[in-house]
Amino acid sequence: MSTLSLEEINRLFKAEEDASDGVLHLTSNEAVLSPDAQDVLSSPLSNRYLLEHVDMRGDSPSRLGGFLFRGLDNINKIELSAHECCRQLFDAEYAEFRCLSGLHAMLTTLVSLSDPGDKIMRFSTKDGGHFATEHLIKLLGRKDCCCVIDRQTFDFDVEKTKKVFEKERPTLIYIDAMNYVFPFSISKLREIVGDTTIVFDGSHVIGLIAGKQYPNPLHDGADILQANTHKTLFGPQKGIIVSNNRALMEKISYNLSSGLVSSQHTASSVSLFIALHEMLAFGEQYTKEVVENARYLAHRLDEKGFRIIGKAHGFTRIHQFYIDVTDLGSGPLIMRSLLEANIAVNRTVPFENVDALRIGVQEITRRGVTHDELDLIADWFVRLLLQGEGAENIRLEVERFMLKKKGQIRFCLPRDVVAAGDGVAGRKRQGEVSPRWVDFSQDQKNCRLEDDVFRAAMELADKAVKVKQQTDSTGNLSLKKGERIFVTTSGSYMKNLKPADFAEIVGKQGNILHYEGVSVPSSEALLHFLVLRDTASNFVVHNHYLPSDKEIAEHHIKVIAPQEYGSIKLAEAVAEACSQGNIVFIRKHGLVMHHKTLPGCIELIEKFAAKT
Amino acid sequence: MSTLSLEEINRLFKAEEDASDGVLHLTSNEAVLSPDAQDVLSSPLSNRYLLEHVDMRGDSPSRLGGFLFRGLDNINKIELSAHECCRQLFDAEYAEFRCLSGLHAMLTTLVSLSDPGDKIMRFSTKDGGHFATEHLIKLLGRKDCCCVIDRQTFDFDVEKTKKVFEKERPTLIYIDAMNYVFPFSISKLREIVGDTTIVFDGSHVIGLIAGKQYPNPLHDGADILQANTHKTLFGPQKGIIVSNNRALMEKISYNLSSGLVSSQHTASSVSLFIALHEMLAFGEQYTKEVVENARYLAHRLDEKGFRIIGKAHGFTRIHQFYIDVTDLGSGPLIMRSLLEANIAVNRTVPFENVDALRIGVQEITRRGVTHDELDLIADWFVRLLLQGEGAENIRLEVERFMLKKKGQIRFCLPRDVVAAGDGVAGRKRQGEVSPRWVDFSQDQKNCRLEDDVFRAAMELADKAVKVKQQTDSTGNLSLKKGERIFVTTSGSYMKNLKPADFAEIVGKQGNILHYEGVSVPSSEALLHFLVLRDTASNFVVHNHYLPSDKEIAEHHIKVIAPQEYGSIKLAEAVAEACSQGNIVFIRKHGLVMHHKTLPGCIELIEKFAAKT
Repeated sequence: MSTLSLEEINRLFKAEEDASDGVLHLTSNEAVLSPDAQDVLSSPLSNRYLLEHVDMRGDSPSRLGGFLFRGLDNINKIELSAHECCRQLFDAEYAEFRCLSGLHAMLTTLVSLSDPGDKIMRFSTKDGGHFATEHLIKLLGRKDCCCVIDRQTFDFDVEKTKKVFEKERPTLIYIDAMNYVFPFSISKLREIVGDTTIVFDGSHVIGLIAGKQYPNPLHDGADILQANTHKTLFGPQKGIIVSNNRALMEKISYNLSSGLVSSQHTASSVSLFIALHEMLAFGEQYTKEVVENARYLAHRLDEKGFRIIGKAHGFTRIHQFYIDVTDLGSGPLIMRSLLEANIAVNRTVPFENVDALRIGVQEITRRGVTHDELDLIADWFVRLLLQGEGAENIRLEVERFMLKKKGQIRFCLPRDVVAAGDGVAGRKRQGEVSPRWVDFSQDQKNCRLEDDVFRAAMELADKAVKVKQQTDSTGNLSLKKGERIFVTTSGSYMKNLKPADFAEIVGKQGNILHYEGVSVPSSEALLHFLVLRDTASNFVVHNHYLPSDKEIAEHHIKVIAPQEYGSIKLAEAVAEACSQGNIVFIRKHGLVMHHKTLPGCIELIEKFAAKT
Repeated sequence: MSTLSLEEINRLFKAEEDASDGVLHLTSNEAVLSPDAQDVLSSPLSNRYLLEHVDMRGDSPSRLGGFLFRGLDNINKIELSAHECCRQLFDAEYAEFRCLSGLHAMLTTLVSLSDPGDKIMRFSTKDGGHFATEHLIKLLGRKDCCCVIDRQTFDFDVEKTKKVFEKERPTLIYIDAMNYVFPFSISKLREIVGDTTIVFDGSHVIGLIAGKQYPNPLHDGADILQANTHKTLFGPQKGIIVSNNRALMEKISYNLSSGLVSSQHTASSVSLFIALHEMLAFGEQYTKEVVENARYLAHRLDEKGFRIIGKAHGFTRIHQFYIDVTDLGSGPLIMRSLLEANIAVNRTVPFENVDALRIGVQEITRRGVTHDELDLIADWFVRLLLQGEGAENIRLEVERFMLKKKGQIRFCLPRDVVAAGDGVAGRKRQGEVSPRWVDFSQDQKNCRLEDDVFRAAMELADKAVKVKQQTDSTGNLSLKKGERIFVTTSGSYMKNLKPADFAEIVGKQGNILHYEGVSVPSSEALLHFLVLRDTASNFVVHNHYLPSDKEIAEHHIKVIAPQEYGSIKLAEAVAEACSQGNIVFIRKHGLVMHHKTLPGCIELIEKFAAKT
């Protein structure tokens, strides 16, 4: 291909900015910055280094060990004031602003507060844990175990967690929940873990903690509170770690200075410092409104017929809530309808077997959304997803709405309102020619799974989880008995399969996969369906193992190009390749193994099993 | 303390921007961006997520596993074009833009291409290796060994490196040089290491590689080329990894998607993409000028009486060179004189026993510096450092010079020249009341070190390197025999002490520490001097071990507050504390242990030794 010209790049970038301006952002993982916090990001100071923790940083010249460089004395003053903000916002004496992102902060804490070989207790992804934690722990040479969450109360199952703790004896507890709506009882956890270090990753709620709308984990027994800084805390994309435990923070600071970061990225640091000062000045009012708006919108959507997770407990106590769309069809396609109407949300599998949209109101709250406007937003959801209205009209309404809100940023120093841009109205996206994903249709809730099929699946899963690089929440499998095809469901947990983790694929009609079962099939269900339909195989296992070139040659692995996860293209390419060999490697993604017999399939899997 | 107001923060930030505008930046680790690459950093798109490698990222909605979010289709197009730039600039088929910094890219590669317990070959810091690598390797549960550099040729000592390789059998070779001026013979290294993976961290020279002024390591046998993107490649602070080895890059991509990064920071990614396109359009001319300017300035400074490292080989073939200031006094103080004249450089200990200023010309080249102007710059160094002229006059000249250059950025799309700011002239920094560091004066080159003193020192060092968390290049020690005081030199290597690694401190006159020896004493020499002078102890060991609260209680450790490395304040605080106990812990920094007898001091050290 040829490269773009610099002029073309500028045009494309401007087009993307304009498009984004017209979108109603209901994502719960992003933020809108104040003009001050935004503008500093492109300061020429973004090119300058800021090294070392400010406690160890003198006036210019600054030094890091034997390396000396021109310091930024005014920035030091701002940073010291930001530390004082943290004392007041989080009741925390010590703060680290050097981590470049939330995951970078997670990594920093994991390597600082555990040794290789140590065991770390985390959330399971089936209980809302962060998708990256398990893999990161493995990469760092640590081991892991999971606390247990009661799916009724959304809180720790204290007895079961205690049992895990006593059996596994982790040296560190890392609360990495990313999908949740209610506070966790950190004080109960503290009671059962003695003086084991507890780290609370509050990436979603740290702004709410600062605004006193979410219980401060440091008050309830957590040793460390850390987060990324761009969700409810309306800062730039960056990480923060605060604590009152001097010894732990010193380890963290030492490792940041010695091996994990050189410059802390000056401009985004200052942007964060500004956001912290804005939180100090305006945070309580802002976060009160955020939580109230989240509950209000969830309540309205519930009234109008959507299933909201956590209804029995009042929907949510934070900035986000979940619409369970399992009954409405396939989450990805529902999300796409919303995007066609210029409404951005997250689609996720927050808990085992739940297909959901995640909605966050922190950004629209900062833009001054009213209850009437929340009603309007709820109506858009109804018209689009329940009443089948096309996206076109709604899209125009959303664009007009966002145009009105443009430049309205509250909870910061006042500025002249930014002139409403042109170029937003009238744009229309080209429809795509071919569909990217199949839709799912639930024909009935009951999946009639015979015992022998389930036993075979268990046997297969038992081997599949032993593959190197395998994490418990990745991969899926399927079986065929006679003409019947069974696939594991989305969000099911390979390590501990239950009969309810299976759906039967009863047919494909155009772009719709019909299934029977309590929850939606794996997003790779089409892949399994096509392989089982188009080959003589009865067993298919898919995982995320990346074979070496040596293994590819040795095991005659058929290799295909990477494709988007869950796409129709991927499924068709895999099915095609499977007609040519029993092991297929999708580059950057993983393996598909299939065989006519169970022992045959197990033999394939065992080629890639970790040595124990 | 009270916090600053938002207005005060804005004022301080503006003041720092203005101050920076008036500085001649001769640092070799920073860059100046084009207006286009700079402006995008504060786009509202900086708040939006960009997840997954672009190969795996469809049009909006994008997905990462089961997580779907609104995609940024125009950015995808720009990113694909940036990949094509990498093919043309680096002759590399695969690229990763997701790492958030150079060290983040280093970490990514280390965890992706080695397993816990594996051994990694790196550069020693005494040979110019990166300060972070050794510690990072330890944090990740890997082991390390070092290649050997010939100090005459500045290149690999092939025979010695081969011996290390055959003895240690590393599974990965990570070329992490940060202090160097000539290309390394990667092809010779390749010959001796078989098919072991070689990673070349080209953080300093990646722009020169793109501009064809530095040999492409991928052509010479390296498997991976990676770097931060803000030195000779005039991009934002970010990381890049390129390669033609598909299998290795897939491991890296997989780990980035699964555990190391969520959003790749959209705005700085686009800023990098713009810089790559600018390199494609203008890079060859730019880098030719950079290398020529570096050699020209080094040559002029040599003519005028400065000692330039690598003179015999033509000073430099890259963007940076080193002035050896060992004979001129203490590097930190020399650097401070330069800063008083508004000239920013790096002070570092590039190689064992060398106190140096590191000069880089990549930024002034982009600002269009001429040979006449380089002569002017050389004159400023002479007047300030050799002729003893005060900084005031020179500072005014530098400010005028930079004002003239303001807004002149070459090698990019033309823009209206930014109006020269006011507020730069006439500022004057307040002189500091008390000195922060001592100066060193070399009374004679010969340090008369008796055999028995050296043997005692060796015995002490032998134990000292066994302390947990100890790296070979950190820490220092001292001894007193009668009235004579010996301290290890700056940049000496504790693991392998030689008699030349000692300086005798012969006295303190006001703020000057007089010494005898071939090279300058440790920057903590004053600390050692005061402890040995003011207590009855004859042996002092300083390392970077951070004791636990339990150890502090158990060993009756005296704890003091953190202070800047190498400062007079730190030395005085330690000496004071040492009069009250034999083990002193400087928070965030490390331990000082002292004792009257050698066995007594060894006993102290052994309390903190790693169990083997």
